Amino acid sequence: MQSRKRGPSSRILVLNPVRPRSLSQVSEEFFKAKASPGFEVECESLADAPASVEFPSDEAFAAAAVVRRVSQVAHRGFRAIVINCFLDPGLDAARDIIGIPIVGAGESAIRIALTGGQRFSIIDVGPIKFACRSPTRQVRSMGVTARFASIRGIGVPVLELNRRLGFTIKRIVREAKIAVAEDGADVIVLGCTALARLAERIRLNLPVVNPALSALRVAEMLISLSLRRRARSS
Amino acid sequence: MQSRKRGPSSRILVLNPVRPRSLSQVSEEFFKAKASPGFEVECESLADAPASVEFPSDEAFAAAAVVRRVSQVAHRGFRAIVINCFLDPGLDAARDIIGIPIVGAGESAIRIALTGGQRFSIIDVGPIKFACRSPTRQVRSMGVTARFASIRGIGVPVLELNRRLGFTIKRIVREAKIAVAEDGADVIVLGCTALARLAERIRLNLPVVNPALSALRVAEMLISLSLRRRARSS
Amino acid sequence: MQSRKRGPSSRILVLNPVRPRSLSQVSEEFFKAKASPGFEVECESLADAPASVEFPSDEAFAAAAVVRRVSQVAHRGFRAIVINCFLDPGLDAARDIIGIPIVGAGESAIRIALTGGQRFSIIDVGPIKFACRSPTRQVRSMGVTARFASIRGIGVPVLELNRRLGFTIKRIVREAKIAVAEDGADVIVLGCTALARLAERIRLNLPVVNPALSALRVAEMLISLSLRRRARSS
Amino acid sequence: MQSRKRGPSSRILVLNPVRPRSLSQVSEEFFKAKASPGFEVECESLADAPASVEFPSDEAFAAAAVVRRVSQVAHRGFRAIVINCFLDPGLDAARDIIGIPIVGAGESAIRIALTGGQRFSIIDVGPIKFACRSPTRQVRSMGVTARFASIRGIGVPVLELNRRLGFTIKRIVREAKIAVAEDGADVIVLGCTALARLAERIRLNLPVVNPALSALRVAEMLISLSLRRRARSS
Amino acid sequence: MQSRKRGPSSRILVLNPVRPRSLSQVSEEFFKAKASPGFEVECESLADAPASVEFPSDEAFAAAAVVRRVSQVAHRGFRAIVINCFLDPGLDAARDIIGIPIVGAGESAIRIALTGGQRFSIIDVGPIKFACRSPTRQVRSMGVTARFASIRGIGVPVLELNRRLGFTIKRIVREAKIAVAEDGADVIVLGCTALARLAERIRLNLPVVNPALSALRVAEMLISLSLRRRARSS
Amino acid sequence: MQSRKRGPSSRILVLNPVRPRSLSQVSEEFFKAKASPGFEVECESLADAPASVEFPSDEAFAAAAVVRRVSQVAHRGFRAIVINCFLDPGLDAARDIIGIPIVGAGESAIRIALTGGQRFSIIDVGPIKFACRSPTRQVRSMGVTARFASIRGIGVPVLELNRRLGFTIKRIVREAKIAVAEDGADVIVLGCTALARLAERIRLNLPVVNPALSALRVAEMLISLSLRRRARSS
Repeated sequence: MQSRKRGPSSRILVLNPVRPRSLSQVSEEFFKAKASPGFEVECESLADAPASVEFPSDEAFAAAAVVRRVSQVAHRGFRAIVINCFLDPGLDAARDIIGIPIVGAGESAIRIALTGGQRFSIIDVGPIKFACRSPTRQVRSMGVTARFASIRGIGVPVLELNRRLGFTIKRIVREAKIAVAEDGADVIVLGCTALARLAERIRLNLPVVNPALSALRVAEMLISLSLRRRARSS
Repeated sequence: MQSRKRGPSSRILVLNPVRPRSLSQVSEEFFKAKASPGFEVECESLADAPASVEFPSDEAFAAAAVVRRVSQVAHRGFRAIVINCFLDPGLDAARDIIGIPIVGAGESAIRIALTGGQRFSIIDVGPIKFACRSPTRQVRSMGVTARFASIRGIGVPVLELNRRLGFTIKRIVREAKIAVAEDGADVIVLGCTALARLAERIRLNLPVVNPALSALRVAEMLISLSLRRRARSS
Repeated sequence: MQSRKRGPSSRILVLNPVRPRSLSQVSEEFFKAKASPGFEVECESLADAPASVEFPSDEAFAAAAVVRRVSQVAHRGFRAIVINCFLDPGLDAARDIIGIPIVGAGESAIRIALTGGQRFSIIDVGPIKFACRSPTRQVRSMGVTARFASIRGIGVPVLELNRRLGFTIKRIVREAKIAVAEDGADVIVLGCTALARLAERIRLNLPVVNPALSALRVAEMLISLSLRRRARSS
Repeated sequence: MQSRKRGPSSRILVLNPVRPRSLSQVSEEFFKAKASPGFEVECESLADAPASVEFPSDEAFAAAAVVRRVSQVAHRGFRAIVINCFLDPGLDAARDIIGIPIVGAGESAIRIALTGGQRFSIIDVGPIKFACRSPTRQVRSMGVTARFASIRGIGVPVLELNRRLGFTIKRIVREAKIAVAEDGADVIVLGCTALARLAERIRLNLPVVNPALSALRVAEMLISLSLRRRARSS
Repeated sequence: MQSRKRGPSSRILVLNPVRPRSLSQVSEEFFKAKASPGFEVECESLADAPASVEFPSDEAFAAAAVVRRVSQVAHRGFRAIVINCFLDPGLDAARDIIGIPIVGAGESAIRIALTGGQRFSIIDVGPIKFACRSPTRQVRSMGVTARFASIRGIGVPVLELNRRLGFTIKRIVREAKIAVAEDGADVIVLGCTALARLAERIRLNLPVVNPALSALRVAEMLISLSLRRRARSS
Repeated sequence: MQSRKRGPSSRILVLNPVRPRSLSQVSEEFFKAKASPGFEVECESLADAPASVEFPSDEAFAAAAVVRRVSQVAHRGFRAIVINCFLDPGLDAARDIIGIPIVGAGESAIRIALTGGQRFSIIDVGPIKFACRSPTRQVRSMGVTARFASIRGIGVPVLELNRRLGFTIKRIVREAKIAVAEDGADVIVLGCTALARLAERIRLNLPVVNPALSALRVAEMLISLSLRRRARSS
């Protein structure tokens, strides 16, 4: 979606707000393979970020790491930045300091879900199996509580996802079906960017939104839309 | 954002839910000029649609016209359809009958606005000048009432927009500034696709979202995202 | 509730937004039998409407058919019009073009439910059994999400209702009891006007709201209330 | 709307939750003149109620007086009871102890307003002139916050209404026009039953809902609808 | 939290809005034992209040009794008043007539719960076992619907609580665990002040809020905060 | 409100999430003077925090600084921690890592406001004068949007507050009066902890909530309430 005149590709910076070599991150290969023509992706993990973003305190440190990095790269010519974590750490803050599009994986996935159905359910990973039909802080903060059906945890820790792929997929499918039958969902959002590669292997009769890919596509779209944003320092 | 292998462009159908040669429609040239590489746009007006979509009854006829046309084109290889009207006539219905992405201009603009700020105001055209800080039916139906700041009408009828461009822009800027100062908006949504060409000439210190362009970009994004949707007949 | 002076009855037009002789419509006899003294009902099905209103695309065509017919009858002396379908197709549009009360069956039933309890559940017909505790588009659009408990589908297609009356009633009663025990409902709304005759045979220890009858009564009430409405063409 | 067989009229009890001979009450003549054929109204003021219902403490005493009286009349053959005060004192409690329809003037007016437009404003009387676009406790409690535009006080005390009729009407019209132009209202609700007689003299180009009359009509409707309600003692 | 200068204790009046010697009331000993240094509690039951507050009609009479008593004690030097009932009868009215802090047990418990987690469930007593995930009137009226997870009734009548302590605790723990696993609660609110003594014996891995104690603590806090409130008569 | 047995005071840590000697912080003297008997306050500024917390990026760094410090002090015997900034940086994260009460100044002030009236307005400092009647992110995230009247900025930068005290107070009073008359507020929340000393000098005929003092009182209350919270590491 770059402008028609052939020129250098638009560069997108994907920030994994986790430490380098963390098992929870999405590999650079994924993004490079998925980038649309005219866009180029650089991936970075952040040395001062936590190993994974599972708890609110991880979120706070991840947010600070993101904001710090965003400040540093402000003048390096990126056209957009993806915060590659479902919890969107540092999203509003990053937007405040730089005028280019800043895209969060959770926000992107939820917005795209709203074009795919009337009510979304989030299928989440983590050690505990749970169900919740009352909106999360993120959903309240986004102001889309009326479209939220439920969040359901499959009870598989992030770091075990790769070792237990088949089981994870089965659990996601099962919880998604319950979300449809009992919570009224007609679109499913995967609640963790670590599920990026797995998303395509989930076969369901309704849309399944992949947060990492959603964030990349929203970044590409906002670049090509040239929406002027208000930032303090730009 | 098409897939990397070079092949035929992805075709997008833009439906203007107004009669051919209506003054309120956006010209095909606009969309053709704005389409991203890899995408091709065809524009159609609809003979059984109303002359403009200003009132709820226009909306009902426009919706039926859209749905009828969408059914006919189901097998013609379009990859996405844009309903080029801020009121999104026939959006849910069209989605129900065909599995490709169906994109409404109003919905697209409002969703994009939500990534550009905390609270949006809609600046609308039409014969009456008004202000309203309580959500419209469309906003309630989308379930984003908590992010809505206001809707303000500039008091210029759609059919007079072209004759009174300078005046229209001045009015939009004035109402947008009031929306910021008194209603708390930090992002502005233009409330009519007929303002498409005009959008770029509005200079404000905050994002101004163009619904026609937003719809095109969202269509391109959803095509490249390959989100499977559930439709009855596909 | 007509005015005290004896004169000609107030005529109400009931529009079944389905094709003539469709199995899903409520017979004219039902309405004629139920009309209050001083009111007279005429029933019409609409040749350009769909066979039934089950999907959003049906809704779009039904809405257009309703609006078209409402425009035609504008000067025939009806005092109110009932749109006899739970999804209220064309309701806002019809209101816009004619100043007499326009009454939707779904809207009427939901409003009456709100005087009968704190939280309503909708028991719906259709091929699929489901439960959903997040508001439907109609409920969001009406702005009454905080009073909504759930919608539950009994899994009986509309066209099989008459052949399977006993089974249908049993299913409605069962789902209503679950709605009370698990969703917190204290008033039940039947989600389809085709259930009109059946409503009286449902025995539950809480109010069961019949949408077709509700619409008739609300129409009678609004006539006798003489509420001036704003319409474009009157 | 009584049943078709000619028999004795349905009796409705109108409770003015204020002391007998209070200036703030609506006279019995009003209700008798407005009752529909087949319905008969009895009016009562309550000796243990306050002189007027302006403050929350008045509301508490009015509620207790209403509930006490409703308990006493439970077996006297009334078919419905109207609580003739905009604040609906004792509404839920009265509903709990008797199975016949209990109708509040405020609730009735607000519900009827929702069929007359998209957003309502309440024009209130009382000593202070004010404007408020955030929902009142009553509106929050009814769960219709998304349809609320504003409440505006005209600054005329209840007990001066009769002495200053012309001035009151002028003020109501002025505030209603501001509610339309600045708050987005398209339907006006009068916020006090003491305005009952005055309502017909207000000329505006949009619906103006009279709470006392609305309550009477809703009572008549609910009687003719024969909705079974759940009450503890019946 | 009294002021630093040593002087007479701040006196708090706890109103049990039930008849003296009712089994449903919390004993004076409880409050006296729990009062913080510098605060002194006096407890009163109300002769004109109902035996228990279980139904809306009880609530109306309790509210009137509370308001009457609050008026009488206005000049007796209390620094705050606790309405010791989860349903907060007379709360707004009492606040209107006297400027000292008026504290309701339900309101206090729900507000404190909001600092202990993201989503609260209320565990209620009463004859019927039930579950409800749609907000109660009290929760709607408080305007905190987005934080409400569910209300669950354990099916033990108030008057049997003391006779069946072990069973009651077991039931509360069981329902609380379901509220966590299925409704997404991370904080539990006990829905009746009669559970005050029992609260400490409930062992759960998340906060359990005791309404009677919460009300006492909020009263102490508001006294020490010296928040000026607006009251009509003070 | 400490327990009755005389022992060592309960220690509260007040974290000013700004750099030492920043002009925007509340002095330790304020808190020491205001602490209730039985409580002892220690104040700390944070070297890795920003100079002031005015923008979202400040908030992110402040949050990380708070969380870092909270982790370090986990075992030093504090009974509660106050985050002394209206924006509550790090609140949820701090709660996640330590089981003692964590109190935010903004959250505390808003909750206390809800006991003082029906609708609150926030009067904020900062360089820009503005008015906004649509909820802020913080208010949405707290889930209390239905009680929010407005936020109004007085147009005085934080760092100029002390130099322009009289002017600041005049501006606050003026905006508060507009909030009452035009936005419907009946309780005022000061939107910055730097206004702590100033709060007592504001004379208005309605409650004015001081966030710094509110946070201290809520901390004292939660200590004396002994609410068990769930934390990961304790």
